[in-house]
Amino acid sequence: MAIDVYWGSGSPYAWRVLLALEYKGLPYSSHLLQFSKQEHKSPQMLALNWRGKVPVIRDGDYVCFESLAILYYLDLKYPDPPIFGRTPEEAGVIMRVICEYQAYIEPQVTMITNAVFGRSDLSSESVTKAMHAAASEARTIEARLSKSDWVVGESFSAVDMVIFPGIQMLRRALEKPDARDLASRFLPVETNYPALGRWLARVEALPGYERTYPPHWRGS
Amino acid sequence: MAIDVYWGSGSPYAWRVLLALEYKGLPYSSHLLQFSKQEHKSPQMLALNWRGKVPVIRDGDYVCFESLAILYYLDLKYPDPPIFGRTPEEAGVIMRVICEYQAYIEPQVTMITNAVFGRSDLSSESVTKAMHAAASEARTIEARLSKSDWVVGESFSAVDMVIFPGIQMLRRALEKPDARDLASRFLPVETNYPALGRWLARVEALPGYERTYPPHWRGS
Repeated sequence: MAIDVYWGSGSPYAWRVLLALEYKGLPYSSHLLQFSKQEHKSPQMLALNWRGKVPVIRDGDYVCFESLAILYYLDLKYPDPPIFGRTPEEAGVIMRVICEYQAYIEPQVTMITNAVFGRSDLSSESVTKAMHAAASEARTIEARLSKSDWVVGESFSAVDMVIFPGIQMLRRALEKPDARDLASRFLPVETNYPALGRWLARVEALPGYERTYPPHWRGS
Repeated sequence: MAIDVYWGSGSPYAWRVLLALEYKGLPYSSHLLQFSKQEHKSPQMLALNWRGKVPVIRDGDYVCFESLAILYYLDLKYPDPPIFGRTPEEAGVIMRVICEYQAYIEPQVTMITNAVFGRSDLSSESVTKAMHAAASEARTIEARLSKSDWVVGESFSAVDMVIFPGIQMLRRALEKPDARDLASRFLPVETNYPALGRWLARVEALPGYERTYPPHWRGS
């Protein structure tokens, strides 16, 4: 039976789950919700996740939300190919780098993208600081990727799935004309972070990637 | 061989790891670092974790940090008793509630405790809002604990280990005389959140709990 996945275009959290489903080759029914119509807050969706957030999956009778929890569940339920490593040691590093991303990069990416898309002051000191911090953390990912094709270990894993949508979102925000000053430390990615740039292209070349790409980003 | 664990008194993140080690009955060498002497930033510690943060564990040649990653590694390496559930479905719920705690409660607890311990303005609107949000999230945990002895499932698990130190830290902060106004919605826990109060006592009664208790909290 196909897994129902409820998601929204441009949500980096939802993107992670689509990447996992495609990578594992799991059959799924895609339910693309329109944020602009508040479809993620419909009574049906609130019955699945009372917080009204996506992604949410339903696998038979089982409902799960919070992207990392979904990746974890999918890996335990459908272990082949694994996305949390093949040994406890590798799994620990994958989860560690996920935690580091969430603690030290994600808040900065969120602040920058919110600023670029008009929800706060783009020239504020806190946004500049966030950009510095994000650029510095990107160096540590660059260092990892200059030694290996994937962020941890020898295959695409949950940590790639967690980080990739955030980097894509950051890149897209920084490409806006208003963000030119902010962007100079980061763009073009291929020049400033060559290994990161090659990794982005590597993920984009994965089978099924096109089905995970945010529909409303096309042509915008 | 004993697992080396590097920690600091009062770090809720380190406390999680000690709870896991005790619950699994794993032999460990405790290295209590003095934050006031910056021992967590010593060259030896920076060699283990360049961010200079605790907890860090060393298990033979393997080093791991970030508390959730350590819990995850320990559970894969030493699976009995499990702390991430016994089925993929239960594991998914444990991880989901951990993610919810980290996203919706932990930032509030951090803001409140920082304010109480003098690092920001205790009467600011943002602190009051954080207290409201924390109190409201505590209701959802209360609802879980009114149906079960543990936050998820039938045993002490990683989600209890993640949440417990945060609640203890919040309770300790709110017991300070300066925090009286803020505390009225939360304290006494036993009255406002009776199931949560019983759960705190249940964790405190676990074997080895005393060894995990922050030394500098005693008598203060």
